[in-house]
Amino acid sequence: MSEAKENVSEAVGGDDKPTSKKALKKQQKEAEKASKKQQKQELLEQDLAQAAEADDSAKHLYGKLPLIQSKEKIDRVLVNVGEVGLDKKDQTIWIRGRLFTSRSSGRQCFAVIRQHHFTIQVLAAFSTGGISKQMLKFIAGVNKESIVDIEGVVRAVDKKVESCSQQDVELHVNQFWVVSEAVPRLPLLVEDASRPESDKELGTVLLDTRLDNRVIDLRTPANHAIFRIEAGVCQLFRDALSAKGFVEIHTPKIISAASEGGANVFEVTYFKRKAYLAQSPQLYKQMAVCGDFDKVYTVGAVFRAEDSNTHRHMTEFVGLDIEMAFQYHYHEVLQVIGDLFVQIFKGLETKYQTEISTVFKQYPNEPFKYLEPSLVITFAEGIQLLRDNGVDVADDEDLSTPHEKLLGRLVKAKYDTDFYIMDKFPLAVRPFYTMPDPNNLMYSNSYDMFMRGEEILSGAQRVHDADFLIERAKEHKIDLEKIEAYIDSFRYGAPPHAGGGIGLERVTMLYLGLENIRKACMFPRDPKRLTP
Amino acid sequence: MSEAKENVSEAVGGDDKPTSKKALKKQQKEAEKASKKQQKQELLEQDLAQAAEADDSAKHLYGKLPLIQSKEKIDRVLVNVGEVGLDKKDQTIWIRGRLFTSRSSGRQCFAVIRQHHFTIQVLAAFSTGGISKQMLKFIAGVNKESIVDIEGVVRAVDKKVESCSQQDVELHVNQFWVVSEAVPRLPLLVEDASRPESDKELGTVLLDTRLDNRVIDLRTPANHAIFRIEAGVCQLFRDALSAKGFVEIHTPKIISAASEGGANVFEVTYFKRKAYLAQSPQLYKQMAVCGDFDKVYTVGAVFRAEDSNTHRHMTEFVGLDIEMAFQYHYHEVLQVIGDLFVQIFKGLETKYQTEISTVFKQYPNEPFKYLEPSLVITFAEGIQLLRDNGVDVADDEDLSTPHEKLLGRLVKAKYDTDFYIMDKFPLAVRPFYTMPDPNNLMYSNSYDMFMRGEEILSGAQRVHDADFLIERAKEHKIDLEKIEAYIDSFRYGAPPHAGGGIGLERVTMLYLGLENIRKACMFPRDPKRLTP
Repeated sequence: MSEAKENVSEAVGGDDKPTSKKALKKQQKEAEKASKKQQKQELLEQDLAQAAEADDSAKHLYGKLPLIQSKEKIDRVLVNVGEVGLDKKDQTIWIRGRLFTSRSSGRQCFAVIRQHHFTIQVLAAFSTGGISKQMLKFIAGVNKESIVDIEGVVRAVDKKVESCSQQDVELHVNQFWVVSEAVPRLPLLVEDASRPESDKELGTVLLDTRLDNRVIDLRTPANHAIFRIEAGVCQLFRDALSAKGFVEIHTPKIISAASEGGANVFEVTYFKRKAYLAQSPQLYKQMAVCGDFDKVYTVGAVFRAEDSNTHRHMTEFVGLDIEMAFQYHYHEVLQVIGDLFVQIFKGLETKYQTEISTVFKQYPNEPFKYLEPSLVITFAEGIQLLRDNGVDVADDEDLSTPHEKLLGRLVKAKYDTDFYIMDKFPLAVRPFYTMPDPNNLMYSNSYDMFMRGEEILSGAQRVHDADFLIERAKEHKIDLEKIEAYIDSFRYGAPPHAGGGIGLERVTMLYLGLENIRKACMFPRDPKRLTP
Repeated sequence: MSEAKENVSEAVGGDDKPTSKKALKKQQKEAEKASKKQQKQELLEQDLAQAAEADDSAKHLYGKLPLIQSKEKIDRVLVNVGEVGLDKKDQTIWIRGRLFTSRSSGRQCFAVIRQHHFTIQVLAAFSTGGISKQMLKFIAGVNKESIVDIEGVVRAVDKKVESCSQQDVELHVNQFWVVSEAVPRLPLLVEDASRPESDKELGTVLLDTRLDNRVIDLRTPANHAIFRIEAGVCQLFRDALSAKGFVEIHTPKIISAASEGGANVFEVTYFKRKAYLAQSPQLYKQMAVCGDFDKVYTVGAVFRAEDSNTHRHMTEFVGLDIEMAFQYHYHEVLQVIGDLFVQIFKGLETKYQTEISTVFKQYPNEPFKYLEPSLVITFAEGIQLLRDNGVDVADDEDLSTPHEKLLGRLVKAKYDTDFYIMDKFPLAVRPFYTMPDPNNLMYSNSYDMFMRGEEILSGAQRVHDADFLIERAKEHKIDLEKIEAYIDSFRYGAPPHAGGGIGLERVTMLYLGLENIRKACMFPRDPKRLTP
């Protein structure tokens, strides 16, 4: 109607030359005529549509559901796709899933419905179960990734459905309803995103495309497995420590001073002041230990304002942090952490075998190897191993990433383990609060732990004497004023203690042998990426 | 020596009048004489000291240990104070703890050693076990809160030691070593900080003094109990949800846009850009659900830049967040969350009874009451209950804090529960992404949950249709550009879903009936407090 109306109004008060009354009347008549014609045409179309609908004997069996707004409670059991098998043969069931693929000929339509990583073949055939041509056409036209509710009869198949997880059955459609429609052109297809990286022919999806459209990319079997494994690492970490009497604590992320050196810290506007995002919970977990919580752990976000765009750095990640008072030697703590990793690896092996295989299907790799108890070598031994293999390294400098990786390979070759602990790092390369080694002043009571040749934990015995801490801080040219509260917490009696911080995403990445940490983070943050 | 030397140098080249050679010689002789005398005196004192030390037959039994730097491994079992009882009668054991109190007469010294909330009486008596007068003096002079290692013999006592947790025994000292010394003047005493609030006579410690010196304040039995209970809430939350197939996820804290309205958000300098601290993980957990993780939870820091200094607001707190796809009605989710709380309350009751009693000793309160299944009332019913009790409230406005508290009391009186769920809040008072109630447009499919009359969870069914979401956002005058990624995540097929966010510290505070949320946070942050 709007177009016709506009014509009328233009005719009545346009900018054209003034017209005679007769001409005006004629124009009006023409406009009215056009309008009437249009109305007639619309009525005709409505009639036709109604007729078609009346013809469609299946019109109550398919369509788009109104938005589920919880208008009423529906007493209906939706069976999980993964649970549809021969035991449900000939039963009529409802499923809900995403339209993964579909292809139709004139008289039937095959579709695959996906729920998580389970898939089932669905068949809609003309005149079977009252299916009309219009219904077939509707089903064939549903966009991929739309969520649908299907009622159907479970039928055994003669030949296994190789392309689906549910291979012994297919579902013969009775009803087909769209719950939530996807747009016709998706930025990426789950099918493409699920393909093994090794498939050079069909290729796969670029990491940035995945991350930009994470909500679709997350639907791949590998991603479901990766993030379940990551949740597993967290749970195994907590369970192992809780069993040993550790208490979970929570530490503030907004802090008043950049306590661990100011360069790599994000600044926050805190009302009318400046504040910072904590680079680690270390100072706080130490305070908890001085508050007589002898064994504590905390799981939480840590922030690093490092402008480094590597495969293993993010500006925000999840820290699994431990701190523990010990009796006489920090190796008491080293052992607890070493054992913790063994518990995590064992737990993953036992409880997440399906998920691990799923990830390896898309990202093939060797299963992770470890020793029990964990292998411990000293930094000096590590250096020697490198030198024995012709690498020129200094005694008192930190290892470069390539040397770290090479050492990982040498250790693997010699000891057959992907996990090891390196003890007694040079004092010069560790933070001010690291306890010097009293037996050799070049070294310190500190350690790193490695998975597949990359560092995943850094830890040490801490200086628990206020005066000695001041001495060490001065040597590191730390502004004493900024760490006053921290130093003071050792003035009221402090037990000797040690601890360490683990990067959750690194553990997940390296356990699975993924080549980029962003694959082990749902919504990664790096200097260039702040969305989604 | 230095004083004598100065005399000499003054004599040699002072500013005095020139003196004759004879006088000079005389002066030199006198100086030498004085110097010799002094040397003699010093030697005498050294001899005396050596003699005294030789006299101190106990000098190998006490003193200050050198800083524990892990120089060597000591093969010694330290028995926990809580485990010292009659079963160890007449055994010689080592303990480590803090000097809680001590009093000495001439020939003996009683001390109480504290480890966590366990205490034991320790007796050092002259000549018993080779104890010297010097050793007694040393023990009596050790500062409170210092950490000590004591070797002693466990002895049964005739009369119960009422002031200690270990009432049937005391430890007769053999050796007494200071591991870490506290300063003589502490900013607060654990004894004072542990006193019941009701003790008007002796009084207690102000909250700010506690928080300023948290490392000491944390040592009280009540604080150890509070933070163990808080850890318990977290663990019970996770366990209950994991058992129902929920997956733990982690969401970014640094976000690119203040997606939930800009007023209460902290700004971060992100390299050369502006970024913000997430006020909730809500948008991300929704994306995870749209990524087919049907049931997710996350535990992590959330930030609110609200300049409100109340008993229940902090600028940073721990969010326990849930999001879940449902089939046809958001009450499926409401029920899961209601049941979750029942599981948490039951778990606390079962596993943390000792800790709950410990807290109530210092902060007396009624045990927490709840119903199974949880009580659900509608907002309209809540309003009616208030009106029935003479309170004038509007149908479509949010409740004020005093009205919320009053309603809590009315509900308690009527239903005998400290926990209840209020369903169907007015649409106007909820965020733009809240699903309107299709049966009554004034309301929405949203709910709050309350403990002791204060809100601890806010949640709702979310709008899962992109176009409807845009419509709602426009009505709320939200900048659509800023939430583009969020809206787009509903364009690729989205299941109906609902969820909620719980404030961990509020749950702990209200379960225990504490009157200030800062007591349920180890290192609280508010507009005025950024340290420690």
